[in-house]
Amino acid sequence: MTAKRIDGKAAGLALREQVAVAAAEFQARTGRAPGLATVLVGEDPASSVYVRSKGKATAEAGMESFAHHLPADTSEEALLDLVVLLNNDDRVDGILVQLPLPPHMDSSRVIAAIDPAKDVDGFHPVNAGRLATGLDALVPCTPLGCLHLLKNELGSLSGKDAVVIGRSNIVGKPMAMLLIGESATVTVAHSRTRDLPDVVRRADIVVAAVGRPEMIRGDWIKPGAVVIDVGINRVAAADEGKTRLVGDVAFGEAAEVASAITPVPGGVGPMTIAMLLRNTLVAAHRRAGLADPEGL
Amino acid sequence: MTAKRIDGKAAGLALREQVAVAAAEFQARTGRAPGLATVLVGEDPASSVYVRSKGKATAEAGMESFAHHLPADTSEEALLDLVVLLNNDDRVDGILVQLPLPPHMDSSRVIAAIDPAKDVDGFHPVNAGRLATGLDALVPCTPLGCLHLLKNELGSLSGKDAVVIGRSNIVGKPMAMLLIGESATVTVAHSRTRDLPDVVRRADIVVAAVGRPEMIRGDWIKPGAVVIDVGINRVAAADEGKTRLVGDVAFGEAAEVASAITPVPGGVGPMTIAMLLRNTLVAAHRRAGLADPEGL
Repeated sequence: MTAKRIDGKAAGLALREQVAVAAAEFQARTGRAPGLATVLVGEDPASSVYVRSKGKATAEAGMESFAHHLPADTSEEALLDLVVLLNNDDRVDGILVQLPLPPHMDSSRVIAAIDPAKDVDGFHPVNAGRLATGLDALVPCTPLGCLHLLKNELGSLSGKDAVVIGRSNIVGKPMAMLLIGESATVTVAHSRTRDLPDVVRRADIVVAAVGRPEMIRGDWIKPGAVVIDVGINRVAAADEGKTRLVGDVAFGEAAEVASAITPVPGGVGPMTIAMLLRNTLVAAHRRAGLADPEGL
Repeated sequence: MTAKRIDGKAAGLALREQVAVAAAEFQARTGRAPGLATVLVGEDPASSVYVRSKGKATAEAGMESFAHHLPADTSEEALLDLVVLLNNDDRVDGILVQLPLPPHMDSSRVIAAIDPAKDVDGFHPVNAGRLATGLDALVPCTPLGCLHLLKNELGSLSGKDAVVIGRSNIVGKPMAMLLIGESATVTVAHSRTRDLPDVVRRADIVVAAVGRPEMIRGDWIKPGAVVIDVGINRVAAADEGKTRLVGDVAFGEAAEVASAITPVPGGVGPMTIAMLLRNTLVAAHRRAGLADPEGL
């Protein structure tokens, strides 16, 4: 391995400390802590773990956490009623509805019901549009975390060739918009891309968000590139019956070629949750009519 | 010249005829014609010409045209009042505020005041966000016209390498989103791109929207590529004191290499106005709770 291993855990912790300091300042100025409401519907084990760790991180940053847990058979109408309640609750700066929702619910409709000013996941079309048109937006946490790591490594991204693999609404497309905003030359590749290895080989910056274990091989990486691996895939481990987490990039191979690369786990994952806290803090400031906290 | 000359004038006329048929059907079903309101502030000669020709095209398509002309010293508040009036006027399906506005006005604020359902220019952040997230949107007319020409030429764009040169909110970024939606592999290049000729040389599809006369040279074009030239630049002509219009692409050179190319004038320009009528028709259908008109 020659590449620097980008420590997302350390970067995430540093960011969370900054958020905690700014949250305390916010409380001193306004008389209340920023608040994040989480909404979990049903008993999906992974979702339960995510929501619990988000709540814990919120409290650790000195912010208020409001956890709502609804049974799996809740009607969409009842969920929408809760969203309206949270929209109107002044203590709540951020609303996070944990996805996926049960199949009888329409996620788009639920997301569209969230007040865009409290949409700390950045999934509301108004926030997607504000990002796309260069206005102040709440930006999805994962691409925002990726951008943070990239700027830590590279400083300016202006003129760099970046390839985003994947075109989802929650990672690929907002990531492309962020990179265009930083004046990178941005290519969005995906399952229909004809010669993906060749497209990736051009790139100074590779952001992989496809959800296919170790699909991106070492010989696709341009020497010296910075590789950000968004994938979190559970695969069978060498020990029978056990599993392990791998990214979308074949880490060992790519680390021989890249200049820097995020591991899985410990790369992008910890940044996502730190950015959720950051977005909640920013939403609190904007809702209170205060300038955005500096350096976040 | 070996390339096919893409006839945007003919394609635009064909589209306008389709719109006229569908507008008559709309009127038969609902008892009223679709309506487009234009708002011109001040006396800019180019803007006056644009607005007049939009009004004329609207009437020719059998739709109602409501032309509003305000003096250059109108206050932003008065303009916003007019927008609210048009938002609430049931005869008005589309609202077009001609840009640029006088310098004492904030275009973003004015655009944000337009009902997104009537935003036939597709500039409202809600429409940008709906486009970015794959929902039904009103899409800016120029990139929509470019996409129409590309699909006329190529049929499916899936897997094609496309380069969009320019990253504006009204052409470059929505164009990229449309091409991603068509499953092309899309690169957004711009003034900070390091080796622009090399980036363009990869592309099966080139959309040029930079506003620099004949910047894109023939030897940047991959043999057989389809070239869409959005630029309309006025330059000095050979005859002293005269001017002529040229695109962002050196047409003569590029036509030797490309398989098809839009001329300037007569390429993208006529499609833009046809798409404005199309968007007005679509907005009318959606507002009336009808399915989108077929094939448009």
